[in-house]
Amino acid sequence: MNMTTALGLVAGTLTTVAFLPQVVRTWKTKSAKDLSLPMLASFTTGVACWFFYGLWIDSLPIMLTNGITFVLAATNLILKLKYG
Amino acid sequence: MNMTTALGLVAGTLTTVAFLPQVVRTWKTKSAKDLSLPMLASFTTGVACWFFYGLWIDSLPIMLTNGITFVLAATNLILKLKYG
Repeated sequence: MNMTTALGLVAGTLTTVAFLPQVVRTWKTKSAKDLSLPMLASFTTGVACWFFYGLWIDSLPIMLTNGITFVLAATNLILKLKYG
Repeated sequence: MNMTTALGLVAGTLTTVAFLPQVVRTWKTKSAKDLSLPMLASFTTGVACWFFYGLWIDSLPIMLTNGITFVLAATNLILKLKYG
């Protein structure tokens, strides 16, 4: 594996797992007041678009990273709607 | 412009501008308690990696979208450190 591919994998992993600690925090504190609903809605929709973009250009890395990020981002969005 | 390129541009725009309303909200409310510091740190670092990945593979779209997202994500991180 060359350095560029390795950097892409690190980048994809960091931006994908990033939303896990946010889900855990909101789940524990049952508080999402400081989270911006437009941010969550825009980001979740954008990540869904990236997933279908990956599907259309037949890119497994783009589909995989954005598929996982979508699940986490959508969970954050639902928790925001639930806990306000 | 074909549909796939258009979808990629929509996806990039949505996931880039998404962080602007979060910066505005935190700036206005001076409150970032519900934002997860590990999320912001991981996401900001990951987006920086995506920027350099774009630089290495000479991809202007990846550099541009992740360069803007980095500025917004880093601003969110600084506001989180400032307002706690």
